[in-house]
Amino acid sequence: MTQRESGVAGGEYLAIDWGTTNRRIYRMRADGECVDSTSDDRGVLAIDALDIPGEIQAMREAHGDLPLIAAGMVGSSRGWVEVPYVATPASLADVAAACAHPAPGVSIVPGVSHLDERAADVMRGEEVQVLGAVAAGLASDTALFCQPGTHCKWIALEDGKIARFSTAMTGELFALLRGRSILSEMLGGPVAAGPAFAAGLQQGLEGGDALGALFGTRARVLLGRLAREDAAAWCSGLLIGADVRGQGDLAGRTIYLLSAGNLADLYRTAIEHAGATVVAIDSSIAFLAGIHALQESIVCPA
Amino acid sequence: MTQRESGVAGGEYLAIDWGTTNRRIYRMRADGECVDSTSDDRGVLAIDALDIPGEIQAMREAHGDLPLIAAGMVGSSRGWVEVPYVATPASLADVAAACAHPAPGVSIVPGVSHLDERAADVMRGEEVQVLGAVAAGLASDTALFCQPGTHCKWIALEDGKIARFSTAMTGELFALLRGRSILSEMLGGPVAAGPAFAAGLQQGLEGGDALGALFGTRARVLLGRLAREDAAAWCSGLLIGADVRGQGDLAGRTIYLLSAGNLADLYRTAIEHAGATVVAIDSSIAFLAGIHALQESIVCPA
Repeated sequence: MTQRESGVAGGEYLAIDWGTTNRRIYRMRADGECVDSTSDDRGVLAIDALDIPGEIQAMREAHGDLPLIAAGMVGSSRGWVEVPYVATPASLADVAAACAHPAPGVSIVPGVSHLDERAADVMRGEEVQVLGAVAAGLASDTALFCQPGTHCKWIALEDGKIARFSTAMTGELFALLRGRSILSEMLGGPVAAGPAFAAGLQQGLEGGDALGALFGTRARVLLGRLAREDAAAWCSGLLIGADVRGQGDLAGRTIYLLSAGNLADLYRTAIEHAGATVVAIDSSIAFLAGIHALQESIVCPA
Repeated sequence: MTQRESGVAGGEYLAIDWGTTNRRIYRMRADGECVDSTSDDRGVLAIDALDIPGEIQAMREAHGDLPLIAAGMVGSSRGWVEVPYVATPASLADVAAACAHPAPGVSIVPGVSHLDERAADVMRGEEVQVLGAVAAGLASDTALFCQPGTHCKWIALEDGKIARFSTAMTGELFALLRGRSILSEMLGGPVAAGPAFAAGLQQGLEGGDALGALFGTRARVLLGRLAREDAAAWCSGLLIGADVRGQGDLAGRTIYLLSAGNLADLYRTAIEHAGATVVAIDSSIAFLAGIHALQESIVCPA
């Protein structure tokens, strides 16, 4: 019998953070320590869905013939099997219970959905990080999390359950504006948390209509109010400010920020500007804590 | 002497609405009646700036060797000569006085700029329509005008002067989302002022963060709250609702709408939903009234 076929609970396993464009593979010890990790660009969109069993076999050949748990877009309609969303409020146990097992020793984590009178939202993958941050004691179990990126998720936990969340297309909009809009020619400059970012941020946080203010980037440059090389930072500040303002009054609150690098700096600046305290959490540590807690909760058919 | 060389005030002339992508040429009688018009795709971006004198000569050969007045992006840094913006408050006389005359018998209309503590904005071409609407008696001289399009302009006139205005990139954003975003696959459906548009409109008008609500289009479809074929109309309603809301409380006001076709229907629906009365004005009639009033005010070097 191989390790996998033994189906021993609490044994070694492979954890996969399998997104749209990238994939990260972690070889995990039974105690939740990561022994080794590797990443590649074999995200869900790079792989024909029918090849996913082959991909899983290849990963086992490369990293060990072990039980495997995968989270992210691999569980979407564009992935292997479409795992139905768990509705809010969603605990770690709820997510574990709703994992799909499309093949022996394979668990696919579901996403989480939120519906109320006004809002509709979905996530796949982010739930592992926030539930993991709480499981690892890195965050309160009643807290607001921010995960910036192409699509910025704001996730509210209450008593350890994902209570509600919203997604802003902040990163994608900025990329579209920078790449393909009337503003493109002006948005080639760097984006850092300096004075131009702060000025745009101020306007975004103050309110008014962010959609309406975007064109002001161009007008400011044409009218000499903004240096051309500062326009990208100003526009980024405007969008991130509007994103943060969309969360309502954050003054005095603590926001757990799951991000790294320049984007973390920008969001930290914006959230602190809104009067909140930022606690940074390493996304990978949060993911591994979450995926390990899920793996321990799952009774997976061997 | 040709007609043009005579430089007779009040004679026939050519009026050009010369935008970024298109150009419309009107042959005008001395009394402001349009005798003939034609349009083509020789907008400013289609023509090397150095060729504009050649274009003007070609238009005169085709339509008459007459004085010529042109408005729109032809007066921008991408056009022939960059005509400095007239700052708000800007009357028709201010705009006429600031026309440039880069060649004999040629007038280029300046744009208008607006700067205050919060906002910066610019226009080139729209000023002719709103000033023309008032000159022709089609609108009050103290009124709010809406000109939907790729960039939707909202222009406030006070005592016949352009007092302030703002530009929303509503049309361009919708096109970017439809063409190149994660929402693209869902935005192929028709956009008309039906129930799906009204539902998105309601959300956009109610407020909250439109940037944040955009992703909800996708979530609504995935969660079965919105039919895929209705998603484009819903998203258009959301954006146009946010655009209208950006103008503040419109209840009880009269909005002059310079638009035509489907876009006019969508904005009429949105503005009326916000409690205002819509008065539709034909954009071409407004343009011709404005350009004629300008031409009559200009003492152009022959």
